[in-house]
Amino acid sequence: MTFIDRLIERIIETKNPSVIGLDTSIEFVPQKIRAACAEEFGEGAQAEAEAVYRFNRIIIDCVRDIVPAVKPQLAFYELLGARGMEAFAKTALYARDSGLLVIADGKRNDIGSTAGAYSGAYLGAGGSPFYADALTINPYLGFDGAAPFIDCCKKNGKGVFVLVKTSNPSSGDFQDLELANGKKLYEHVADKVQEWACEDGLLGTYGYSSVCAVVGATYPAQAKALRERAKRLYFLLPGYGAQGGSAEDAAAAFGESGLGAAVNASRSVLCAWRHERWGGKYGHDDFGEAARAEALRMKAEINRAIGAPG
Amino acid sequence: MTFIDRLIERIIETKNPSVIGLDTSIEFVPQKIRAACAEEFGEGAQAEAEAVYRFNRIIIDCVRDIVPAVKPQLAFYELLGARGMEAFAKTALYARDSGLLVIADGKRNDIGSTAGAYSGAYLGAGGSPFYADALTINPYLGFDGAAPFIDCCKKNGKGVFVLVKTSNPSSGDFQDLELANGKKLYEHVADKVQEWACEDGLLGTYGYSSVCAVVGATYPAQAKALRERAKRLYFLLPGYGAQGGSAEDAAAAFGESGLGAAVNASRSVLCAWRHERWGGKYGHDDFGEAARAEALRMKAEINRAIGAPG
Repeated sequence: MTFIDRLIERIIETKNPSVIGLDTSIEFVPQKIRAACAEEFGEGAQAEAEAVYRFNRIIIDCVRDIVPAVKPQLAFYELLGARGMEAFAKTALYARDSGLLVIADGKRNDIGSTAGAYSGAYLGAGGSPFYADALTINPYLGFDGAAPFIDCCKKNGKGVFVLVKTSNPSSGDFQDLELANGKKLYEHVADKVQEWACEDGLLGTYGYSSVCAVVGATYPAQAKALRERAKRLYFLLPGYGAQGGSAEDAAAAFGESGLGAAVNASRSVLCAWRHERWGGKYGHDDFGEAARAEALRMKAEINRAIGAPG
Repeated sequence: MTFIDRLIERIIETKNPSVIGLDTSIEFVPQKIRAACAEEFGEGAQAEAEAVYRFNRIIIDCVRDIVPAVKPQLAFYELLGARGMEAFAKTALYARDSGLLVIADGKRNDIGSTAGAYSGAYLGAGGSPFYADALTINPYLGFDGAAPFIDCCKKNGKGVFVLVKTSNPSSGDFQDLELANGKKLYEHVADKVQEWACEDGLLGTYGYSSVCAVVGATYPAQAKALRERAKRLYFLLPGYGAQGGSAEDAAAAFGESGLGAAVNASRSVLCAWRHERWGGKYGHDDFGEAARAEALRMKAEINRAIGAPG
C-alpha cells in the first residue's frame, strides 16, 4: 500500500489529523527517569540517550491509540551523538511496533548518489538502520536530489515531505521571492513538487500522492492558496501550538473532505504537563498523561476548526 | 582564531587548495579489512562501521601532511546506522588529532531552535558529539535557520559552507530561476550569504569570512561570476573528478591571489587505486598509497590551473 493511503487510513481510523513531534530534548525528561538511567549507565551520552528513549516510549504508549503518526526530529537525537541516533532508531521501531507511522524529520538533501545513501538510511525496503515510513527533505538541489527519495516512495511504499513554505519567521527570505514568471518561489516549488508527485506509483486511492509537502501553519493565507494550487499534495503543518499557529490557521490548509493535511505539535504535547491550561493538575512525572490530554484537546480543536466530527 | 584563517593557513602551509571527501562507502574498503572487522565484531553494522573507520584512518595517515582538510559526507555514515555515526565521530577526531580541519558535509537545515540542536551536535564549543570545524548547510529556510550555525562561527571559531550553486545536473531547477529583480536565485542567495558573512566576528585577516559557500566546479561560468560577486565568501567546490569538473573549471572560482576556493574530491581519491591512470600499479590493498599519489596529482593539477607554485 502507498504511504499516503496508510497515513490517510490511520487519520480516518483515529479521527485525528494531527501528529506528535518527538523533538525530545533531554531537558523534557523528568529527573526520576534521568537518575535511573544515570544509575544504570553512568553519567553521559548513553544515559541521556536512554532517558530520551524511555520518555518517548511513555509518550508513544499514551498516544498510540489516538494519533496516526509520530514525527521524531533528528536534530535532537544527533545532539546526543551516536547514542542519540541509537535512541532515534529504537524510538522509530517502538512507534512502528505500536502501530504508528513514523515521519523522520531530517530535512535531508544532497546530490543524487549521496541522496541515495540518505534514502537507504531512512527509507530502505527492509533493513534501513533508521527505520521510517517517511522523511522530510529540502528541495533546493532540484529534481535529481529528490529522485532517490521518490524512488523509495514508489518501490518501498514510503513517503517524503518536501519543504515548500516553512513555518519560521525568516521563511520568506528566499521562499517568498517573486520570480520573473510572476510566481513566488514557494509557489513554483509547490508546482514542481506536484509534478514529481504525479509520477506513476505515487498516487493513492484518495487522490493524494506519497510525495507530500511541508507548509507552515503560521502562514494561513499562503497555506490556503497552496491547498487550491496543489491538490495532490498532502500537507504536513508545523507551527501549531508553541510556534503560534492556531487551529483556525491550520484549518486553512485542509481540503473540503477534512483531509489534505496533518498538523504537527511537539513541545506543546511533550511538555503539556507544565502548561497553565491544566492549572497545575499534572506534575513532571505525569508528562505522559498530560501529553494524552493535550493530544485529545488538540484533536478536538482541529476537528472543530475544520468542521469534522470527532 | 577564525575558522577561515585556520583553513587558509593550512592551505598556504600545504600549498594545496584541495580537500579530500571521506564519502566512504563500505564497498570502497578492501576485503582484508572487512574480514578482519567481521572476525572481531561478527557480521553486521558494527563490523562495517569499524571497517569504514579503519579505511578512513589509513587515508588520513596517507594525506595528513599534504592536504588542509577532510570532508566526511554524513549520508554514508548514517547509512550504517548509529554505529556508522560512531565511525563518523571517531573519524572526525582522528582527523583533528592528525592536524587536519574537518568539514562535516551534512547540508543540515531547520527552523531556529532545531538548527540550534544541529549546531550543538557539530559545531559546539567543547563537547560536540560529532566534532567538526565546519558544517555544510542549506539556505532554503532563510536567515533565522542559518543564524544558530553562524553564532557558532562567531563564538566557537567554527565555519559554515552555505549551498549557493550546487554541482548536480538539476541544480538549476530552482537555483537558476530568474527573479523579478533580474537576478538568478543563486545570485540572490550569494548576495544574502555575503551579507550574513560580513557580520562582526566573522571576517578573518585574509579578507574572507568563516561563513563560506558551496559552488559546484561543474558550472565554471557561474563560479567565475560568483567569485567577482561575493568577494568575502570562500568557496568549497564539489564536482571535480568523478563528477566531471576539470581543474580548469575549478580554477574559475579562485581569486587572483590563488586563494578563495578549495576543491573537493572524494571518489577519485578514495578509489584512486583502480583508476586507469595508474595502469594497474596499485591493488585494492594499496588504496592509501594510491590516494596519496592522486591527492598529489590533483594538487599539482589545480596549482597549475590557477597559476600557483607547488
